[in-house]
Amino acid sequence: MDDIRDLSRWPIIVAPMAGGPSTPELVVAAAQAGALGFLAAGYQTAAAMNAEIAAVRTASDAAFGVNVFVPQASTADPAKVAAYVAALEPDARRLQTPAGQPVWDDDSWDAKIESLLADPPALVSFTFGCPPADVAAAFRDRGTFVAVTVTSPDEAAAAVGAGANCLCAQGFEAGAHRGTFANDERPGQDYGLLALIGEIGQVTEVPVIAAGGIAGPAAVAAVLAAGATAAQLGTAFLRCPQSGARQAHKDALADPRFTTTAITRAFTGRRARGLVNQFMIDHPGAPPAYPEIHNATRPLRAAAAAAGDPDRLNLWAGQAFRAACDHAAGEIIERLIPGTKRN
Amino acid sequence: MDDIRDLSRWPIIVAPMAGGPSTPELVVAAAQAGALGFLAAGYQTAAAMNAEIAAVRTASDAAFGVNVFVPQASTADPAKVAAYVAALEPDARRLQTPAGQPVWDDDSWDAKIESLLADPPALVSFTFGCPPADVAAAFRDRGTFVAVTVTSPDEAAAAVGAGANCLCAQGFEAGAHRGTFANDERPGQDYGLLALIGEIGQVTEVPVIAAGGIAGPAAVAAVLAAGATAAQLGTAFLRCPQSGARQAHKDALADPRFTTTAITRAFTGRRARGLVNQFMIDHPGAPPAYPEIHNATRPLRAAAAAAGDPDRLNLWAGQAFRAACDHAAGEIIERLIPGTKRN
Repeated sequence: MDDIRDLSRWPIIVAPMAGGPSTPELVVAAAQAGALGFLAAGYQTAAAMNAEIAAVRTASDAAFGVNVFVPQASTADPAKVAAYVAALEPDARRLQTPAGQPVWDDDSWDAKIESLLADPPALVSFTFGCPPADVAAAFRDRGTFVAVTVTSPDEAAAAVGAGANCLCAQGFEAGAHRGTFANDERPGQDYGLLALIGEIGQVTEVPVIAAGGIAGPAAVAAVLAAGATAAQLGTAFLRCPQSGARQAHKDALADPRFTTTAITRAFTGRRARGLVNQFMIDHPGAPPAYPEIHNATRPLRAAAAAAGDPDRLNLWAGQAFRAACDHAAGEIIERLIPGTKRN
Repeated sequence: MDDIRDLSRWPIIVAPMAGGPSTPELVVAAAQAGALGFLAAGYQTAAAMNAEIAAVRTASDAAFGVNVFVPQASTADPAKVAAYVAALEPDARRLQTPAGQPVWDDDSWDAKIESLLADPPALVSFTFGCPPADVAAAFRDRGTFVAVTVTSPDEAAAAVGAGANCLCAQGFEAGAHRGTFANDERPGQDYGLLALIGEIGQVTEVPVIAAGGIAGPAAVAAVLAAGATAAQLGTAFLRCPQSGARQAHKDALADPRFTTTAITRAFTGRRARGLVNQFMIDHPGAPPAYPEIHNATRPLRAAAAAAGDPDRLNLWAGQAFRAACDHAAGEIIERLIPGTKRN
């Protein structure tokens, strides 16, 4: 197996969506429709990740991917974080739930890598940075494709240097967290997907999975024409029955009250794209502090979801969210396939 | 003539680039290579526009477009503008040139429209808003295609409602000014090109010219696959000999010291994408005041250009600027043509 295109019948990937949306059922449905599915290890324990992997393997022999968050040294300024958590007080009162502790954690990195290396999936992708070179090499030695999520040509070059043999090029259009390595404010890091694919093609020849704002067969055809090896879609599947997204999130994606998306640090301390809602508007100045602010807002988001309050929930969505429908994942994939045949 | 594709042999458009880069020579070279060229009426007198139109018509019978800026009511807060102009003092000292008066103007709208209606080109495009419905209708009555530059699906719907029979969909990746109608800070207005083409396709069926970050034949193929009628490129032609861009601008595009682009109001009071340089870094907080700040910085930019100082010049560039080369316009077009044949 030396071509990532051999992992699935069609060059269509159902994106990893951490925090609930990605489920074993979604991965299996993707495989049954000829696409490549992804589990999302982020925010889970290693044991929960392993249970999901086992569930997929019980239901299907198909290849699938697992996405892992790469922990980064904390960038949190404690005073700014404390001020931000204090500013969450009105939300906490309204939701009758105190904010969480703004603590750093490594998302169980060591345990997840140990489990994945012991019984590796066909593809492992990393987000928020590169894995150490020895980890990348260990996966490659086991025949696993190693993808790194990149948002700029510089990150692409760094990822290939760190041992990635595949890249996930994430355009600015994409829903949820930007995969940008550094959680900072440098200008010029927000590449549109089409320009990003072209720029990455100037620095490396490894296969590129294109992600961000892809909604239908025409967009699939477009990224393949631009030079991508496969098209990865997340938001398009958020509302499908196999998605584990919260009901309030699914409903908001179809609610005409939400008309646009923007990038915010308000929910997690890291830049992420979601539907513009009241929480995003109320908290424009969140400092770069991930996962500290993620951990602080977690109980608030859980309470908002339980209360069905979309205005205090992170409503991750890419720019093409209006096209997301509630059909079965297999039907959504079926509708994308003509886009893979045009080139 | 009822299809914009009939205006040129290939669905490739050389973008209007106001302020110097667009020249009659560039329009003629585009036509000779089978592409559609554009004159840029912005920042010119009507007489200068007319002279350029006459120069093109003398050299070529081919169709071409003229782009016009739509004046908008001033959004300038006089105190903020005054503070910003005061903050330009170190630049003025360094360049030994005082800043200009931050005055509003309408870019000679009436005179330009009168001239264009009297002897219309094949295509007129508008930027920074919609023309009044009677102006759009008058052009359409004369057989002229009426395009409006749009940056969101809402603007696309408004433009079609105002009488546009063609749209220029400008992705966030594009160099120079965003064509966004309102000069404000609303979140969620920065669509990537691919998502924008798809979203516009949901609200209207008029032909869409795709612009923003298109650098080579693969990107041309991509936007056509996405559903665009033609691909419009600006930055790709900035360095060519037919471009009237300032030499310091041309040189900066090839200077490895400039590594990325960002969107700024620093130069003109309206959001525009250029190479990140010292002026952009020094002046992050320019207020939304166009053309007031454009007029204030104009003498400084002219002095910087004369001094060959790229750090005080507006170095407009799209995200794919690294691909811009100094070959003749016809050669650049020749290299794009294979991208038009893939669909």
